Amino acid sequence: MWHYLAVEGVDGAGKTTVAAAIVSALEAEGREVVAVREPGGTATGEAIRRILLHSDDSVAAWAEALLFAASRAQLAAEVVAPALARGAVVVSDRTVYSSLAYQGGARGLGIGRVRDVNEAGLQGIWPDRVLLLEVDAAAGLAREDAADRISVEGVALQSRVAEAYAAMAAEDPVRFVVVDASRPIEVVVAECVAGLVRR
Amino acid sequence: MWHYLAVEGVDGAGKTTVAAAIVSALEAEGREVVAVREPGGTATGEAIRRILLHSDDSVAAWAEALLFAASRAQLAAEVVAPALARGAVVVSDRTVYSSLAYQGGARGLGIGRVRDVNEAGLQGIWPDRVLLLEVDAAAGLAREDAADRISVEGVALQSRVAEAYAAMAAEDPVRFVVVDASRPIEVVVAECVAGLVRR
Repeated sequence: MWHYLAVEGVDGAGKTTVAAAIVSALEAEGREVVAVREPGGTATGEAIRRILLHSDDSVAAWAEALLFAASRAQLAAEVVAPALARGAVVVSDRTVYSSLAYQGGARGLGIGRVRDVNEAGLQGIWPDRVLLLEVDAAAGLAREDAADRISVEGVALQSRVAEAYAAMAAEDPVRFVVVDASRPIEVVVAECVAGLVRR
Repeated sequence: MWHYLAVEGVDGAGKTTVAAAIVSALEAEGREVVAVREPGGTATGEAIRRILLHSDDSVAAWAEALLFAASRAQLAAEVVAPALARGAVVVSDRTVYSSLAYQGGARGLGIGRVRDVNEAGLQGIWPDRVLLLEVDAAAGLAREDAADRISVEGVALQSRVAEAYAAMAAEDPVRFVVVDASRPIEVVVAECVAGLVRR
């Protein structure tokens, strides 16, 4: 059984819905579950989220990568590490793998360099399972009802994100669980819950 | 002649006064000078500055280091790199060396690890001269009239910062110019201007 689950995918892949279903299924089994989202999940992280997603100010690519890493370091220290230490499981709507895919892959900063920066901040707190919801980038964007600063960059960026996710999944098949999320959401949810929640 | 000057020292060392005097002296010689401060100096950087210095929310040590690095990456991309590219000189009230001293040294994250994170974000934009204003940590704090989240941690932190600065200066004597800033500010200013502004 995993302890720190990353729910990942392009915008509109269904991450929030799937994460909520997994949390409910785990709680129904009596597990303590801590559900978080990135960026955010702490007071400082939510302030960083506002800069990242809802600011009109210019944000350079490396500034963006470092802001995500800062929000994540705060979440790890304040929420994730204590939860794992007391035996809870953590389900996170986006994690460091989003930064590897978006800033490292799609923005071209380099997956290895973005990983190094995040490893410094996370101090060993790292998802031990990654649920990748795969969906066509254009279809995902069409599903999104609330655009943010990054999603409005459109399908070209999201396609590069999807490629980076797929490459990471191919390289790390033990950690990644890849689910075809182009099907109806009830089907996707059922498959994810069956695959990730021990019965 | 240097091109990107870091003005460094513990809180209350006189950095802002000295930086302004150096800027004036350079402008009197007809140089184009870009004066900046960290954290901040851009719209996104000033939003980060508010989180770092004026928030009541918890900020973990690595989140702090990454936020400073993010503000600095934005400043480098938006202001410092273009200024240097057109032949201007840049005078900065605090730079990456503050992070090396405060987060790397005083907070114990490691000067090397904090340097790595910042090098990723700065993409080769690095101060070629560091003016270190040395003053007793307690005397510096006594001079400060506006406390921020970090300065209120007091003399123990500032003393470790001063030690980290001194160690870096000893290891890199070509880049560092060390000035005794415990003397009257007019004397300090005159010495810094004489030493750093070509006549």
